[in-house]
Amino acid sequence: MNLHPDYLLNRVEEPEDIKTMSMDQLEQLAEEMRTLILERVSTIGGHLGPDLGIVELAIAYHYVFNSPTDKVIWDVSHNSYPHKMLTGRKLGFMDPDHYQDISGFTAPDESDHDFFKIGHTSTSVALAVGEAEARDLKQDPKHRNIVAVIGDGSLSGGLAFEAFNNASKVKGNLIIVVNDNEMSIDDNQGGLYQGLAELRATEGKSPNNLFTFMGLDYRYIEDGNDLPTMIQMFKDVQDIDHPIVLHIHTLKGKGYQPAIDEKFKYHWRKAFDPATGEDRQAPAQESYNQAVVKELLAEIDEGHEIAAINAAIPGAFGLKDFQAAQPDRYFDVGIAEQASITTAVGMAEAGIRPVVFENSTFLQRGLDQLIHDVALNSSPIVMVVVNGSISSQSATHQGTFDISYISSLPNIEYLAPTSVEEMVSMLRWAIHQQDVPVVIRQPAHELLHRPATTNDYDEVKYEIAHQGQDVALMAVGGFWKLGEQVQAQLKEKLNIDATLINPISVTNLDYETLHHLPEQHDVVVTIEDGNLSGGFGETIARYFGPTNVKVLSFGAPREFADAVPLDVLYNQYHLTPQQIVDDIQRVVHTF
Amino acid sequence: MNLHPDYLLNRVEEPEDIKTMSMDQLEQLAEEMRTLILERVSTIGGHLGPDLGIVELAIAYHYVFNSPTDKVIWDVSHNSYPHKMLTGRKLGFMDPDHYQDISGFTAPDESDHDFFKIGHTSTSVALAVGEAEARDLKQDPKHRNIVAVIGDGSLSGGLAFEAFNNASKVKGNLIIVVNDNEMSIDDNQGGLYQGLAELRATEGKSPNNLFTFMGLDYRYIEDGNDLPTMIQMFKDVQDIDHPIVLHIHTLKGKGYQPAIDEKFKYHWRKAFDPATGEDRQAPAQESYNQAVVKELLAEIDEGHEIAAINAAIPGAFGLKDFQAAQPDRYFDVGIAEQASITTAVGMAEAGIRPVVFENSTFLQRGLDQLIHDVALNSSPIVMVVVNGSISSQSATHQGTFDISYISSLPNIEYLAPTSVEEMVSMLRWAIHQQDVPVVIRQPAHELLHRPATTNDYDEVKYEIAHQGQDVALMAVGGFWKLGEQVQAQLKEKLNIDATLINPISVTNLDYETLHHLPEQHDVVVTIEDGNLSGGFGETIARYFGPTNVKVLSFGAPREFADAVPLDVLYNQYHLTPQQIVDDIQRVVHTF
Repeated sequence: MNLHPDYLLNRVEEPEDIKTMSMDQLEQLAEEMRTLILERVSTIGGHLGPDLGIVELAIAYHYVFNSPTDKVIWDVSHNSYPHKMLTGRKLGFMDPDHYQDISGFTAPDESDHDFFKIGHTSTSVALAVGEAEARDLKQDPKHRNIVAVIGDGSLSGGLAFEAFNNASKVKGNLIIVVNDNEMSIDDNQGGLYQGLAELRATEGKSPNNLFTFMGLDYRYIEDGNDLPTMIQMFKDVQDIDHPIVLHIHTLKGKGYQPAIDEKFKYHWRKAFDPATGEDRQAPAQESYNQAVVKELLAEIDEGHEIAAINAAIPGAFGLKDFQAAQPDRYFDVGIAEQASITTAVGMAEAGIRPVVFENSTFLQRGLDQLIHDVALNSSPIVMVVVNGSISSQSATHQGTFDISYISSLPNIEYLAPTSVEEMVSMLRWAIHQQDVPVVIRQPAHELLHRPATTNDYDEVKYEIAHQGQDVALMAVGGFWKLGEQVQAQLKEKLNIDATLINPISVTNLDYETLHHLPEQHDVVVTIEDGNLSGGFGETIARYFGPTNVKVLSFGAPREFADAVPLDVLYNQYHLTPQQIVDDIQRVVHTF
Repeated sequence: MNLHPDYLLNRVEEPEDIKTMSMDQLEQLAEEMRTLILERVSTIGGHLGPDLGIVELAIAYHYVFNSPTDKVIWDVSHNSYPHKMLTGRKLGFMDPDHYQDISGFTAPDESDHDFFKIGHTSTSVALAVGEAEARDLKQDPKHRNIVAVIGDGSLSGGLAFEAFNNASKVKGNLIIVVNDNEMSIDDNQGGLYQGLAELRATEGKSPNNLFTFMGLDYRYIEDGNDLPTMIQMFKDVQDIDHPIVLHIHTLKGKGYQPAIDEKFKYHWRKAFDPATGEDRQAPAQESYNQAVVKELLAEIDEGHEIAAINAAIPGAFGLKDFQAAQPDRYFDVGIAEQASITTAVGMAEAGIRPVVFENSTFLQRGLDQLIHDVALNSSPIVMVVVNGSISSQSATHQGTFDISYISSLPNIEYLAPTSVEEMVSMLRWAIHQQDVPVVIRQPAHELLHRPATTNDYDEVKYEIAHQGQDVALMAVGGFWKLGEQVQAQLKEKLNIDATLINPISVTNLDYETLHHLPEQHDVVVTIEDGNLSGGFGETIARYFGPTNVKVLSFGAPREFADAVPLDVLYNQYHLTPQQIVDDIQRVVHTF
C-alpha cells in the first residue's frame, strides 16, 4: 500500500513532470524524498547518507536536463534512489510491498533512464568519457549532455584518475559533478583530500587544483543542497561545448541528524529503528570477523610485527576494533584495492607482516597486483577474503569468482577454512611462516565451531573427517555443513557410507590422499561455494580425468544472480542436500 | 669476452666504488654506460630510450645513497640497466657471453640491490610507501632513505595515483623521483601531461601542482641529465624526514640521436643495426596484427561504427597503421587498462562498436572492469588479446592466465581462432552481432592459414577437422598445429586414427558434439597454450567427470617461467608431440 497517497511525488511519472513545478513544490518534493529514503532504508536496509545528501542534485538534474536524451551516470549508483523516484520508480519507495521491485543500484532493465548496472566505485567518468567520445564520433546531436556524478570518496580509486586524465581529451560536452561530502564510506584517506579541502576553503579559488591541472574547466558550488543554486548551476552549463568539472559541496545524511553525526554508521545500514538508531535484528554474538581481529591482536601482543590493511571498508571486516586497539598498525588506503595489495608487498619486503582484508567482489580490482606483485615475488603477505560466496545480494557484488582467479596463480596458497577454529589456526600459521603468500577465504555462512585438526599447513594434508567408501565427498570451506548433510542423507537414503573430506586448500592438492582415493572410491564429489568454472571441482576433475574415478562437481554456474533469494538459488544450482544425493545416485547407478 | 677491458666501469664491483671517483671519472662512466646499453640492446634487444635517459640519475643515486641499506625501487624496472651496471652486474653489459645472465628487469635473485621483480608500470610508489610505513612501524633506523623512481608515462596508471594519494600519509622519509622525459612508451595521453608541461615551463613554479595538491613536498630540476646537479639534488634530500617529490626533466634516448628523434621506435627494440637502425631480423611479411587492422578498416569502409582502443602500446597491435588511416577512431588512453575497458563500455552503450586491444599480461589490470562493467552489463564490446601464450619471455609478462580468468566469467564469449582466416572471421562476426561481449585470443604463433569453416559464432559448433575414433584431440587456438602433429604421430606410431577438433571457444561448449563424443571415443585430449589450472582442459574434464570418458589435459602448470627457452619449456610441460603421444598411450593401454 502506498503509505503517502497525499505526496506531491505521486504526480511525478516522468522527469518532465517536475519541470512545471514551482520552487516551493520542488522543495516539498525534496522533503518527501528524504522521508521516503529513510522509511525504505530503515525498513529493508540500504544506503542512507549518500542518498539523503544528493536529493537536490537529482531534482536539479531532472529539472534542467532532458532524461534520457541527456544521460546521467551515477558513480557506484547506490546514490541513485532520488533519481529512481523521479524516473517512474517512486512506488519502490512509497509502498513497502514494492520496495523489493527496485534494486539499490541503477539498472537498465528497470528504466530507460538508467544506462548501466553499476555497484563498484570510480567507473562513472570512464563510462561518461566513452559516451561522449561515441556521441562525437557519430556526430549524434541527440545526446547533447553527458553527466557523470562522482563522490569525493570515489576519487581515490585509480580508475577515476585514469578517466579524468582522458576526460580532458573529449572535444564536446562532458559534465562531471564531483559530489564532495567530505567523506568516503569511512573517513577519506590520503593527500588528495587536503587538496579538496583547500578548494572548499577557498570556494574553488585556490590555484592548486587537480582538475584544472589536468586541463579541465572547473566551477565550485559551496551549497550543493540549495535547490535554486543547483538548478542555476546546471542551467549555466547545459549544452556546454567542452568538459567541465562542477565541484559541489553537499552534506552527507542531510535531513536525518544521526546520519549527519555518524556518517560511517549511516552510510549503509541494515534495517534499523529510526528513532533509536538500533538494528532491528541484533547482530550475531560471535563472528568470524571478531575471531580474526582477536587473533591479530594476540599475535601483536606476542611480538609479531603485523599491520592490517584495507581499502575503505573497515566495517566489512570488523576492523574498527583493530584500529582502536592498534591505530599505528591500521592502514586504510582509500578506495584503492590495487594500492592495498602492492603497498602490502612493500611492507612484507621490509619485514612487517601485512594482513590485507578484501571483499571478494572488490578484490577483482587487484588481480594484476596479486599476480605481478604478490605471486611473482612470492611475497609473504596474508590476505583475508570475505563474501567469497554464492549469495542473494546484488549481482554487482557477486562473490563467486575468487576461487577461479586466485587458485590458478603460482606460489599463492589459497586456504578454505570450514570453521572459526580452523580460520584462526590458518591465520596463525600464515603469519608465522615466511615463505609464501597466503589467502584465506573466510566462510560467508553462520559461524561454525569445529576444531582445527592441524596447525601446520606447509603441506596440504586433507582432513578425512569420516572414512567411508564408494563415494568421497570433498566439501570446501563454507560448504562444510552442506557436505555433512549430504553425507548423512547418502547414508540414510541410499545406505552409502561416504567418506567426508575437508580439502583445506583450493590451490594445492594433497596428492597422496588423492592417489589412494580410487582404492576404495568410485565417485568423488566436490561441493564449493563459488563458480564451477575454474573452481576447485575442475581441479579435481582434471586430476582424476585420466582415471576410472568419476567426478561430480557442485557449485555455481557461470551466471550473474541478481537479488535472488538464497534458497531459490541453491535450488536452481542443485545445491540442496537432496538434489546432490539424487545426482550422486544417478551416477552410482550407472556402474 | 669483455669487449671493454679498458673501461673505468671495470673498477666498479659495488656502488661504493664510485663514491671516491672524481666528477670527470663519473662523467666518463656515464659515457661508457651509454655505449654499453646501445651495444647490448642492439645485439639482443631490450629497452633503449628509457635507459639512455636515466644514466646520470642512477650514477647520482649510487654516489649519494648507500645501497642496499637505502633502497631504490625502479618503476617498470626496464630502466634499471644503469643501476645493474653499478651493482655487480656489469659483465651482463660488457661481455656478450654474459648478456643473457642478466634479465631486463630488477631481480632480487640477481642482486641484493634489487628488492622486487617488476615488469609492469606504476607500482613503485605503492611499494615504496609500504617500505617506508614498515620502516617507521618497526622504528628501523637502518633503511633511512626509500626512493622510488617513476616515469611520467607511468603516472597515467591508476595504481600510481592511488599510491601518491597514500604517500602523503607517510610520516618519515620517502623520496619519489618523477623522471619526466615527456614520453610514455608512445606519446603521453591525457590532461595530466598539460599540467606536467606547465610545471616544466615554469621550472616547477606553477602553483597548480598535482603533487603539492596531494600534500607532498616538491622540487623541480630542469636538467636531470646533468650529473653535478643530480648529485646535489640527492645530497639535498638525503635523510629528509618527510615525503618529497623530485620532478626531474630528462632526455629519453640521450646519447643516441636516432633514439632521441624517434622515441617510440627506440623505446624497446629487437636486435638492430645501430648504424642504420634496421632490425637485424626482417619482420614477417604477414602478421595477425596486419590482418586485424585491415579487417577493421574494411568494416569502417562498409559503414560500421568502429573505434580502436588501446592502453599505451599501439606497437603491440600494429595500431599505428589504424591510427594513420582513422585518426578520429583511434584511442590511446595511456597506461590505463582499467579505463580502456570501461570507456569502451561507455562507447558501446552509445552505439559505437569499440575494439579494445589488450596484452594478456596487462589485461590482468582490467579484471574488475571485465566482470563489473563488461560481463554484468553484457556490453557488446570486442576485445583482441595478444600474447596469451606460454612463452620464453620474462616471467613479469607471463601470458598464461587469461583463459583462467576470462573463461569463468558470465556472458563473455572467449573465442580462440586457429588461423588468420578464422581470426578475421570471428572478428567480423563479433563486430556485426550486438548481443554479447566477445574476446578473441589472437594466436601468438607463426601465422597459420586455414579457412574458417563458419562465419556464425552465435552458437559454438565445434569444427571436426578429422573424424576418427577412440581418441578425440581438442587443440585450442594457437596450439592447432601441435594438435595436427599429435594426430599424425598417433596414426603413425600407434595406429590410432584420432578425431581432431577445433573447439572454437574456450568458454561456451558445443554440448551436442560433446554429448555424442563418447559413442566413438574413450579418451578426450585437450591441448591449450596457457594455464591448465582454470583452463579449457578443466572445463572439459568437469564435463566428462561423471562419465566413463577419460580426459587428458595439456598446457602450462601453475608456475612462472622466467626467460626459459620455449623448447625447454615445452619439454618440461610435456608439450612436444612425442610426449603427448606417450602420455596418451599410457592411458589407452590401461583399457
